[in-house]
This record gives sequence, C-alpha cells and structure tokens, in this order.
Amino acid sequence: MAKALVLEKTRQLSIREIDLPRTLGPNDVRVKIATVGICGSDVHYYTHGRIGPFVVDAPMVLGHEASGTVTEIGANVTALAPGDRVCMEPGIPDPNSRASKLGLYNVDPAVIFWATPPVHGCLTPEVIHPAAYTYKLPDNVSFAEGAMVEPFAIGMQAAARAKIAPGDVGLVIGAGPIGILTALAALAGGCARVMIFDVVPDKLTTAATYAGIEALAPAGGGLADQVMRATQNWGADVVFECSGHPSAFPRIFHHARPGGCVVFVGMPVEPVTFDVVTAQTKELRMETVFRYANVYDRAIELIASGKIDLNPLISETYAFADSIPAFERAAEARPTDIKLQIELPR
Amino acid sequence: MAKALVLEKTRQLSIREIDLPRTLGPNDVRVKIATVGICGSDVHYYTHGRIGPFVVDAPMVLGHEASGTVTEIGANVTALAPGDRVCMEPGIPDPNSRASKLGLYNVDPAVIFWATPPVHGCLTPEVIHPAAYTYKLPDNVSFAEGAMVEPFAIGMQAAARAKIAPGDVGLVIGAGPIGILTALAALAGGCARVMIFDVVPDKLTTAATYAGIEALAPAGGGLADQVMRATQNWGADVVFECSGHPSAFPRIFHHARPGGCVVFVGMPVEPVTFDVVTAQTKELRMETVFRYANVYDRAIELIASGKIDLNPLISETYAFADSIPAFERAAEARPTDIKLQIELPR
Amino acid sequence: MAKALVLEKTRQLSIREIDLPRTLGPNDVRVKIATVGICGSDVHYYTHGRIGPFVVDAPMVLGHEASGTVTEIGANVTALAPGDRVCMEPGIPDPNSRASKLGLYNVDPAVIFWATPPVHGCLTPEVIHPAAYTYKLPDNVSFAEGAMVEPFAIGMQAAARAKIAPGDVGLVIGAGPIGILTALAALAGGCARVMIFDVVPDKLTTAATYAGIEALAPAGGGLADQVMRATQNWGADVVFECSGHPSAFPRIFHHARPGGCVVFVGMPVEPVTFDVVTAQTKELRMETVFRYANVYDRAIELIASGKIDLNPLISETYAFADSIPAFERAAEARPTDIKLQIELPR
Amino acid sequence: MAKALVLEKTRQLSIREIDLPRTLGPNDVRVKIATVGICGSDVHYYTHGRIGPFVVDAPMVLGHEASGTVTEIGANVTALAPGDRVCMEPGIPDPNSRASKLGLYNVDPAVIFWATPPVHGCLTPEVIHPAAYTYKLPDNVSFAEGAMVEPFAIGMQAAARAKIAPGDVGLVIGAGPIGILTALAALAGGCARVMIFDVVPDKLTTAATYAGIEALAPAGGGLADQVMRATQNWGADVVFECSGHPSAFPRIFHHARPGGCVVFVGMPVEPVTFDVVTAQTKELRMETVFRYANVYDRAIELIASGKIDLNPLISETYAFADSIPAFERAAEARPTDIKLQIELPR
Repeated sequence: MAKALVLEKTRQLSIREIDLPRTLGPNDVRVKIATVGICGSDVHYYTHGRIGPFVVDAPMVLGHEASGTVTEIGANVTALAPGDRVCMEPGIPDPNSRASKLGLYNVDPAVIFWATPPVHGCLTPEVIHPAAYTYKLPDNVSFAEGAMVEPFAIGMQAAARAKIAPGDVGLVIGAGPIGILTALAALAGGCARVMIFDVVPDKLTTAATYAGIEALAPAGGGLADQVMRATQNWGADVVFECSGHPSAFPRIFHHARPGGCVVFVGMPVEPVTFDVVTAQTKELRMETVFRYANVYDRAIELIASGKIDLNPLISETYAFADSIPAFERAAEARPTDIKLQIELPR
Repeated sequence: MAKALVLEKTRQLSIREIDLPRTLGPNDVRVKIATVGICGSDVHYYTHGRIGPFVVDAPMVLGHEASGTVTEIGANVTALAPGDRVCMEPGIPDPNSRASKLGLYNVDPAVIFWATPPVHGCLTPEVIHPAAYTYKLPDNVSFAEGAMVEPFAIGMQAAARAKIAPGDVGLVIGAGPIGILTALAALAGGCARVMIFDVVPDKLTTAATYAGIEALAPAGGGLADQVMRATQNWGADVVFECSGHPSAFPRIFHHARPGGCVVFVGMPVEPVTFDVVTAQTKELRMETVFRYANVYDRAIELIASGKIDLNPLISETYAFADSIPAFERAAEARPTDIKLQIELPR
Repeated sequence: MAKALVLEKTRQLSIREIDLPRTLGPNDVRVKIATVGICGSDVHYYTHGRIGPFVVDAPMVLGHEASGTVTEIGANVTALAPGDRVCMEPGIPDPNSRASKLGLYNVDPAVIFWATPPVHGCLTPEVIHPAAYTYKLPDNVSFAEGAMVEPFAIGMQAAARAKIAPGDVGLVIGAGPIGILTALAALAGGCARVMIFDVVPDKLTTAATYAGIEALAPAGGGLADQVMRATQNWGADVVFECSGHPSAFPRIFHHARPGGCVVFVGMPVEPVTFDVVTAQTKELRMETVFRYANVYDRAIELIASGKIDLNPLISETYAFADSIPAFERAAEARPTDIKLQIELPR
Repeated sequence: MAKALVLEKTRQLSIREIDLPRTLGPNDVRVKIATVGICGSDVHYYTHGRIGPFVVDAPMVLGHEASGTVTEIGANVTALAPGDRVCMEPGIPDPNSRASKLGLYNVDPAVIFWATPPVHGCLTPEVIHPAAYTYKLPDNVSFAEGAMVEPFAIGMQAAARAKIAPGDVGLVIGAGPIGILTALAALAGGCARVMIFDVVPDKLTTAATYAGIEALAPAGGGLADQVMRATQNWGADVVFECSGHPSAFPRIFHHARPGGCVVFVGMPVEPVTFDVVTAQTKELRMETVFRYANVYDRAIELIASGKIDLNPLISETYAFADSIPAFERAAEARPTDIKLQIELPR
C-alpha cells in the first residue's frame, strides 16, 4: 500500500493509500519520485473520465511525466545505480513485438502506458520501472526539467519525423504546451527560425520570449498570407499542426513550400477535411506523431547542453499535498499556464 | 502550319492545319511523332472543356503521351542524334527555378505542359522539344511502349516516393490505368506482391493477369478486413490511393501497417475526409504525387530489361486519321479499356 | 543429450551426443530441424578454428542456416503453433539494448549467434529458439528454401540499406553465394538490371541464368570501362562490394554514378585502400552491412510470391549422416558450388 | 578591362587591368563586389600553381567567396533588383544536365567554378553572374558575413548530408576553417553538442568560445577513448572528417556509435586506409561532400536569425590595394588565423 493521487471517478480525486506493484523484476529499477508534471490527458481524465476508448471505470493513479532517484536495481541492471537521478518513459512496450523490433516501439499495440486506464500512473512516492525506459539525468538537469522531458519528447518526435534540414523555416500551429515544445525542438533540431500561430494571443506570450520563435496572431488575409510574406512567397519548409482544431486542417497545405513537409501532432477529436490536390501540386510529405520512441536520450542531451531551456515553461509548482488544487487549476486551462508540476516529498 | 488534332471547344474536335512553333533552339531537338496515347485528361478537356482552373478557351492541340524519332538537333545538343528513337516528358520547367534546383522540377510553378491550356499538345506529326526532356529508347522498346512511358512515369513517381523496402506488401486502391501502372511500378520497384482493389470487377481483369498482382473485389467486411487477412493482421506496408474517389479516404489508414506509408496519387475533385488519429496511432507517413521528375530513364530501364511489360495494357491502336473516333471511344470509358493509342503516319 | 555435428577442433568433426539446452522458456519455441545450409563461416571454423577474435577452444555444434517444424511453444507465444513450418534468425539480441530499441538489433554488441564460439549451432535434430526470431514459412516455401533465408537475408539487408530507387542499375562485385544473393535481392528490390563481376568465370555461370542479371568477366580496360559502357557513361546507381578482396576497393568509386551509393557487404580481412576524393567528386553515399535485421519476413514474402527462386542455388543436398563429407566438399570451395545443404532425419 | 587581383604564375600576384566578361545575359545580374574571403584553395594556387588536375597555365583572377550589390539585372530576372545586397555561389552548372535535374548540381561535371583554371575569380570590382546562383542578403547580414556564406556552405552541406537527428552528438576532426564551420553548421543543424579535435591546440581556441562546442586536444588513450568517455561508451552519432589528413582515417570508425554516420569533408591528397570491418560491425553510413548545392538560402537564414555568428571567425580584413600582403599572410597559415577577407572599394 502506498499513498497516491487517485482519480476515483470523473471530477473526484483523493490522496489516499492504494495497492500498487512493489516487486522489483531483474530488469527493473525502483525509483523514488521527485517531480510529476500535469498533462492535458491527466486533466481530461479528471474532467471527463475518459479519452476516446479509454474509460476510467476503476480508481486510477494519475500522472505520467516524472523524474526521481533510483533506490534499487534489479539483478540484470548495469546501466543504472542507486542514487542516479532519472526520468522515465511512461510507455512500456513488448520488446519482442514486430513494431518494437523495427524500432517503432511507440506504435506497438501492446504498449502499457502510465495513467491510461487500467494502468496506474506515477503520482505516488515510488514506482517500479524497466531500466531500459529509465534515463539518467546529468547533474545540471533539475528534477523539474527531468519531469519536462516527457512532453518535450513529443516535440522531439515531431522534429525527428519532420527530417528537418539545417536552416529550415518552421511553422507551428497552436501555442499550447505541445506547440511550444515542438517549436523549441524544431529550433534546436535544425530550423533557423520557427513561426508559431495561435488564435489566443496570451498563449503566444511565453513562446515569443525565445530567440528564434516568432509569434503570429490572427491577421487580415489569413495565416497563409502571413507565412508567404515571411518566406518570400515560398512557404514554410516544415509545418507542425499542434492544435488538433478542425479549422487548422482545410488550408494547412497552403502554408508549406513545394516539396515541404506537414507533421500532424495534434489529435483532432473528429475526422477532418483535407485538400489533397493542394498537397499534391506541391508534392508535400506528411508525417504523423504518436508519443515518441528513441528520443529521451536526445532530449536530455539538448537540455543538458543548454541548447533548450524548459524552465520558463513551468508556470507553477505545487506540493504533493496540494495535488487536488493543482488539478483544479489545471482544469481552468488558463491561457498563460503552460506547465504545472507537483513535487513529491523529499 | 501543320496538321494536328485540335480541340476547338468542348466536345468538338477537328483534324486540321494549325500554326505551331517550328524554330529549333540550341538546346532543342526536332521529333517526328510516332505514337501518342490518349490520357484521361485529354478526354476530360474534350468532354468538359476544362480541368479545375485550366480552361480551354482557344483551339488547342491535344495529346501529351508521345514517342517518335529525332530528325534534327540544336547546336548544343550532344546526347541525342538524328535517327534516335525517343519519348518525351511533356512538362518543361524553368531549369533555374528554386524547385528545379532542388531536383523537384515537377512542382516548379512555371512548368509548361503539353495539352494544358494554353499550351498545345503533341497530336501532330512533328514537335520541337528540349533535349533535356527527351529520352532515347533502346532498340527493344517499341514506339507503343515509348508512348506508355508518360503514364507509367506517374506510377514510377508513386513507387519512388513510397520508398519501398525490398519485399514490401503493397495495396493499390483503384484499378484504372494509373492504378494498374502504379501496381506494376510498385512490384518492379521492390514489392513482393501488390493487391489491387476496385469496385468495378471488369477493371481488375487485366491487372490480375500479372504475376504478383492480386485483384480484390468488394467483399463483406470491407477492404480493411481483406487486407488484414492477407497480411497476418499487420497491414500493407504501402497503400497507393489511385482512385481519387471520396469514399476511399475516410478509412484508408486502416489498411496500412504500423509505421507504414500511404501515397496519394489520385486527385479527388473536392476536399476529402481524413481520420488523422488512426494515422497517428500507427505513425504513418503520407506522400503525395504530382506528375513525375527524374523517373523517365528509370522507367525505360525497367521496360527494356523486361521487368515490366506494358503491352497488355494497350487496348487498341488507331490511325491518326481516326483520332476523333478514338477520342469518342475513350470518352465511353469502357471498364475493359486501359489505354488507347494513336499512330501518326510513318 | 542430443546427437549433433560437433567441431571438436580445427579440421576435426564428429557426429556425436552432446549436451544442449532443452528448457523451453515462456517466449521460446521448440523446433525440430529439417534442413541446414553450410555457410562459409562454418567451413572457416572447420578449416581454421577461428574467425578473427572468435576462437573455437571447446567442441562446438556447427550450423546456423536452418528451417524446421515447431513442436512446442512457450506459455507467452501466440504467433506460432505446433506444426508450423519455420525458419530461424540465428542471432539473438538483448531486446532491451540501446541498439535493439533503435531497430538495429543486428549491431547490438550483446547478440548471441549460432555457431559463433562459444555458442552452439543448429546441426542437431532439435533447438530451442525465441519465438520473436522464428518465422513461419508459407506452404509453398520448402524447407530447403527456408534454410536459404539466412544467407539471402544478407543480400536483403544490402538491398535495403542501399535504398534502391525503382529502376536503378546495380553492380555486384564478387559472384560467390553472397554476391549472387545480393544481386537477386537488388533485382527483386527494385533494380531494373544488375551486373555481376567475378574474376573466376565459373562462378558467373549460375548467376547468368537469372533474367535481369548480366555477368561480367574481366576484360581489357577494366571494370570501370565495362560499367561506363553499359550505363551510357553515367555509372551504376548502386554498387555492392561482395568479394571482400582488397583489389576491389581502390577503384570502386569509379563504377558509381554521381550521387550514387556503394554498399560494403564483403568483409576484407585487412584494412583496405580508399580513393576518398573520387567518392567526394561524385558525392557518393556508402553503406555497410552486418548480418541483417527486420528482413526475414520480407525475404519470405519474396520467395513465397515467386519473385525470387533460390532453388537453382542449392548445388547438392546431403543426409545428416553424411555431414562430414558435406563439409569436406564445402572445404574444397568448388567454383560451381553455391550452396550445400544437410537434411536432418524426418 | 577591369582591375583585378591576378595570379600571373606560382607565387606571383599583381593587381592590374585584365579583360573580363562584361555582357549581361537575360538571366544574369551585374554585381559590384564588396567583400571577398581568401580560401585555402586560392592560397594553394598562389603557392603551388595547381590543385590536382587544375593547373594555372595562364594569368587568372583569384577569389570565389564574395558578396556585393546588384547594379543591373537581365531581362528575365524578377527575383532580384538593383540595390539588392547579395552573395554568390561560385559554381555555375549546366541546369539541364542529368545531375542538375536530380538536384545534384554540385556534381555536374560541367560546372564552371570561379578561380578554378581556366575560369577567372571575383577579386575584381564587378562580376556578371546568373541570378539563379545569386542570393539576397537580409539587412542584418553584413557584406563580411555574406562573403562567409561560401565556406560556411560546405559545413552546411556536410550537416545536411549527415541527416542529423535532433539532439545528436557530433564529432569534428580538424579545426581549420572548414572544421569550425562544419561544427557550427552541425550545431545549428540539430546537434546538441559537437566535439572538435585538432593536434594544433591554437586552432581550437576560437572554436572553444562557441557554446556547445567542446575542444579536444590529443590526450593519452587516443581520440576514440576521449569520445567514448564523452558519450557513455556509445560513440558519436555523427563524425565529420574535416582534416583530410591520412592519420585521421584508419581508426575513424571507432569514434561512431552503432548505426551512426561518418561524413568525409576533408580531401586527402592520396588514397587512405579504411578499416571496413569496424564500419560493418556498427553498420555505419558514410557520406561524402563536394562543395554544396541548395544550401545558400538555408545558410543565410541561419545567419540572419542569429543562430550562427560567423564574425568571430574573421581574423583580419584588408583593403583591395593590400590584396598581395593579404595573400602573403594567408600563405603563412598562422594557426590562429581563421578567415582573412579583402574589401573592394565602396
């Protein structure tokens, strides 16, 4: 039994004792949790009790963006040691699946993912996790930054799949947390500059403080006009759709240059409308993103090297005892809040 | 003045004298036309007088799928000589454009394309063409096959952009000429086998005679079920959409394997509906095709090596004098007709 | 204890009882071996007792090219069933290693590989193998063909890494078994035609019987001249070095076209000489091959579809009781022998 | 007739009148030269009179790294206007060649390149140049930076061909101008950090002032040991060979991670020794670089965005009248000199 933040049912959270796995397998590590970020999906389970086919029909521990300290290692583990500061990939695939063998372990249908029903999350003082999905943090990366690696990894996956060429010009649609993290990953990943667009001006404020990111608010003529003006009428090399909003899709191919790429990161709730012929006349490539694979180590390198500073994105930090108010604030979805985090007791 | 098949206006063709360019530039060749295939776009201009923004508002020579014999070369031409049997790429880009410099000359907005208003086509005994877009035919490739290179090049472009890995399993949706040619290109280009689907059973007949192509007619459970059964529940590695029909799009991602690719070849008249989330959960890549670039030489190699036999696709050949009946037959769109060709006088 | 072909020490083989693992793990299958091919590395251990750092200093069962029938499955195995006809990848990686997570399980330093000291091979009536590295054979693929999948997989890996574009022209240097299998994989994998070169004319005989393969014997002017003549002075799109002979390397870049690719398959015993500047002036890409990963299923698709016929490469088949004469014949290295196989008792 | 810096023969320079082309073609621009950088190849022609097959056997104007101002445009030019500040690609390909059509115009054998015998360079007040190879400089990019685009483009080409994934760790061998520019391009192009190695400690001084670049001087155990320690025993994701020194090649594959990439930028005078088997056991990819294609616009974006600051690399600037002393200094090859530039009269 361990204390945890438990989603009892829609809109009802408790901090209470719950039975969680405590047996350390030979390839596992035991981790004392330090910091956990609140993700939009955690909030959505809290407010709606489900995401698509995933329904919370039994009490479930929330949280999947975590950092902490290794306290014990399994018999086969050699790459980690007690005392190591770490962060964890929340999805655990079957390493022998056909997708995993291809290096695409994120699309293995057998993945088990923290805080996706019926799997418990990590808002609890201690977890057991496979060593292969636990990554050491260098000394100059804080626990708060370590807990940011998970959402940043989505941006990294988007940047990786885009196959950015050095000096590309990027465009990100949607300035929520994932949009901003994608812009940062694209910039660190080779873009010369990244434009970011949102209809809510407040969301652009923090993004605009980063060198290399240019905020675009709605203007007469539409986004395509703005992008064309900013690219000598050529278009963006890479467009990242991070809003998931249906209005973003019908004209999205207008923003890209001939031979460019559009990456679909945001997940629209319903099917959307595509103008295939416009994509064809530019022979665009389209990529899609589902979580991430093989990017945690790269994300950590970028944070440790100083190329990426995620600290400005942490809007406020709560104590574990205040987890419920933290979720209530997250549920407000203030446009100036980017990431709220919860610190477990030291 | 030269005799040509002229589209005077919608539904009105004549064979008559018309003024066509006759000046040979230093980088050009003069070609005596041997064979011209009738393309769906030629027929569409004939029956509708326009394709999207391209409107036939003055008499225009039809035809863009051509082979012939070089009769004269410009001062700078070294790679071709009079007497060479050749076929021609019908699109002429600005070689100094930004797109052309990238090797993407097909998406150069300045491309001039045969039989796309206001540019005349090649259904006439002689044309002037840039040597750089004129390709020598080996002795064992007939003029009829040479005139098939143009539509085959679209299939080649689709196969090239798919980045087929050796032994991939392909699926082609739509068994019209482009669908069949795409299936053949995919098979020659590395697929172990290709399924081809059409709702009109007659269209599948010729396709099914090729080794390695498996025809799929509509069946209970839908196409996705058929594909899953044929791939041990994994999905096709590459899906080629060649129908352009709106019904093909909403569930197209169901046919692909995790990490697979969908190539959009067919051009839907209206915007279509995409299920982005299904694409994302498999992290699919999507490619689009617009005509072709840098594939003519590869297409000719495949025909000359015997790996591809296009002869079964030539349904009937008409004399130039019978061009108008040929177009009338083409306008009937018989499901068993794949390609009709016109032979110019020898 | 089980009967096996045991290499006692250099040049000394016995068929005798030896202690082999018999415990079926939850992710394993038990396989009754049907056919085993003799590989050059088996022969080299027999004649030299070592390959580079791998020294046979204790009796070792030989053989790593095997097919057979599943007789029992572990508790977690769902994709295979008793009675399934299968072939096996002989290398077993750590599925949680950094390389395996990337999909590069062949370059995982922890790989355990059949018949590589001190690991026993498969020339024995029964083996235990991980289900994830055991592949079902369709009904129309024989055990003999199934045992050819392993060496063919090297050719497949070479073809995959080359990133062949449809209609490429290939050149293979060295017409030993791997050279021929690489030529076949390149042809099936998208090449329009493949030239294959060897200094021993007898080695070219079988290769030349395949449609699409052109045998090149040494001729005046050298190989580069022959290749340039055969490619209108452009060069091969992809060059596969499969000889490992030092003489192949100094001029290898002369055979490739500008922007082409050279794949190093053969393993030269000593460091070799490269003309880097010639590679640079053509901006060539070079790829290297180490065994294979994620190609067995593709190889089986190509055999089952009839696109590849490996039967002509099986020079002779021996009974298990005649394994020692089979190895003696293999050690003769007759230029007309491509693959010798051994059949285990049914 | 125009004044120019003329290499009369080995070790003999004059500033004198010489006959240069002055006719503006319809696709050309006339450019008043502002700044020209001195390249190692200029110096090599000065000191040796030849580079490989290129022999200075008639007086030749030196210089190929140039910026300036458009003063007149040809009849077809629309993308540039008089008054535009620009820099120029010094190589002019045949835009209709097979290589150019593929987007590989740098490896077109017909390329004409400034200051490569018998073609005159740009150390003269005015040049005629094709508009397609003339690039507009934004207001915040100086002429001095504009003249740095040419050498930087080689680093950009190296970074582009490496296909850097976001967060890669790079290693550059050789800290001359091209090594440093490659390190900067790799860093801007997606690397989290780049190590740079040279045997001459003074060459590392400027490189080490850039955030993200780590200078490595020779140390006990060799470079491979240093790299392995700096990468948790995994190896660099991308290794850039920029020294051209024969000692760099025999062990170069030891520095790369399994599945990594080695890019050959430096041009060794003689053939070098490769350890192919080490490359194979890691399945490395190798890329080669020859000048650049399609990177000038990307290079300018990176400079304009502030992501790359090339100013610290400009060691000293000379007036055109002092061109000869400038070349004498360049010929000294001081280890602390990175780039010397010459300013033409305003």
